[in-house]
Amino acid sequence: MVRKRPLILVSNDDGFQSKGVSELIRFLRPIGDIIVMAPDSPRSAQSAALTITTPITFQQTRREVGLTVYKCTGTPADCVKLALNTVLQEKPDLVIGGINHGDNSGINVHYSGTMGVAIEGCISGIPSIGFSLCNYLANADFRHLKSYIQLIVRQVLNNGLPPQTCLNVNFPDAHQYNGIKICEQTHARWIKEYIPYEHPYGPNYYWLTGEMQILDEHNENNDAWALTHSYVAITPIKIDMTDHAQIKEMQNWDWTLPKEED
Amino acid sequence: MVRKRPLILVSNDDGFQSKGVSELIRFLRPIGDIIVMAPDSPRSAQSAALTITTPITFQQTRREVGLTVYKCTGTPADCVKLALNTVLQEKPDLVIGGINHGDNSGINVHYSGTMGVAIEGCISGIPSIGFSLCNYLANADFRHLKSYIQLIVRQVLNNGLPPQTCLNVNFPDAHQYNGIKICEQTHARWIKEYIPYEHPYGPNYYWLTGEMQILDEHNENNDAWALTHSYVAITPIKIDMTDHAQIKEMQNWDWTLPKEED
Repeated sequence: MVRKRPLILVSNDDGFQSKGVSELIRFLRPIGDIIVMAPDSPRSAQSAALTITTPITFQQTRREVGLTVYKCTGTPADCVKLALNTVLQEKPDLVIGGINHGDNSGINVHYSGTMGVAIEGCISGIPSIGFSLCNYLANADFRHLKSYIQLIVRQVLNNGLPPQTCLNVNFPDAHQYNGIKICEQTHARWIKEYIPYEHPYGPNYYWLTGEMQILDEHNENNDAWALTHSYVAITPIKIDMTDHAQIKEMQNWDWTLPKEED
Repeated sequence: MVRKRPLILVSNDDGFQSKGVSELIRFLRPIGDIIVMAPDSPRSAQSAALTITTPITFQQTRREVGLTVYKCTGTPADCVKLALNTVLQEKPDLVIGGINHGDNSGINVHYSGTMGVAIEGCISGIPSIGFSLCNYLANADFRHLKSYIQLIVRQVLNNGLPPQTCLNVNFPDAHQYNGIKICEQTHARWIKEYIPYEHPYGPNYYWLTGEMQILDEHNENNDAWALTHSYVAITPIKIDMTDHAQIKEMQNWDWTLPKEED
C-alpha cells in the first residue's frame, strides 16, 4: 500500500502574496500536498471574524503538482471555511496559518487572524497550527524557521492533537534559537493604545498602537518568557474556553429573581 | 459617605441604533451610570477583530444625566479599547456587550462581536458580560429579559469575577424561563456553511449560512442543552486558552531537530 501524502490546508492573514505564506509553502512541500486559500489582501488582527453582510468569492492563482493556491475575498477564518466547503474533496490532515509577520503570543491569540485560521481548523475537527515570527517587516527573513516548522508539523502529523486543541507557535526575532519550549499563554494587556490626530473638518481620529503590559512576567512557563529567552514558543490553545472553577463558584450565588422594578 | 453609582461601559455588534442595545440601556439605568461606545453600523461576527489599516473615530449622539452615547467607526473590540483610552476618565465597574440579536452560545463565542466586547473588557481587567437573545429579528421582544439581566448584573457587581474570566449569557427564544443555569461551552461545529450563486461575469460567489452540529448533545451541562430546555444560560469564559494537559503531553514529544533538508 502506498501511503498517501498528507494534505495540508494553508491560510494566513497577511494575504496570499505575503512572504510569510510563500516561505511556509516552501517549507511544507517536502511534507505534503498543499492547498492554499488565503485572503486577497492583508487582514491582520481579524481574529476569527466572518463575512456575513456580503458574499465572498475565490479565484485560483497557481496550480502545479502538489500545490494549488486560491485567493479569497474573505477573512482568514472565512478562507478556512470556504476551502473546506468548496475546493477540498476530502478533509485535510492539517490546517496551518501563517507564517505571520508579527508576534501572536499571549493574549494576541484573541486578535490574530493567523490564529483565526488555526481556531477555525480546530473547530472543524482538523489538527491545526498557527505559525508567527516576531518581526513585522514585509521582507523578514524566515529561512532559519524551516527546520523547526518541519519538525513541529511532522510531530503533529505523528502524534495528533486533542480534538479541541490547536497550537500557537511563535518564533522570536532572533537568528539562533535555544530550542523549543511548550508554554502557557502569557497573561497580559495592551496599554496606551491610540494616537489621536486632528481631522481638519471633524472629530479627532485615532490610530491603534500600544504597548504590551505583561502581568505574569516572572512566570518562566509563559510564551513571552520563552520568546525573550530565544526559545521557539509552542502554546497549546483550547477551543473550549469554559472556566470550570467559576461554574462551581457561580452555582452558589443567589439567583432568586427580585420583584419587578423600573 | 455617599456610595458612587457603578459606571458601566456598554457596546455591541449590532450598532448603536439597534433595539438590543437600547433595551439594555433601559434595563441598566436603575443600576448605574452608562457610557455607550457602539459601532455606527452592524458588525456581527466580528469576533475580537481590531481595525489597524485605517484610523477610527467616534461622535457623541446622546447625552443626559447618567447616560452618554457615542457611535464609533470601529469594531466592537475597537469600541471598548477606544472608550477606555479616550472618553472614560476612570475605569468602569463593568463592561457589557449586547443585547445581541442572535445566539452566541457554544463555539459562537469565537465569532461573536458581542463576546468580542466582553473579552476585550476582561483583558482590560474589568468584569465583563455579553448578553444575547436567541432571536435574530430586528424588532425582537427583549422585555422579559429585564429582571434576569438586572439580577445577573447586580450579582456580578456584588461578587466580582476572576481577573481572566468573563460571562457569556444567552437567553432562549422563549417568553418564560425555567431559571438560570451555569453552563459549559457546547462542543459543536458549523456544517453546510455556504450557498453558492452564479455570478454573470465571474466566479461563483458564496453566502455564509450553515447548520450548527452539536457534538456533545447529551451533556446536560452545556449551554445548548440549557437553551433548548428554556433556561437562561450563563457560561463563564476564560481569556487564558492554554491547554495545560497538552503542555505535559507535548513535553514528552521528541523535539530533536533533524539535519537540514530541502
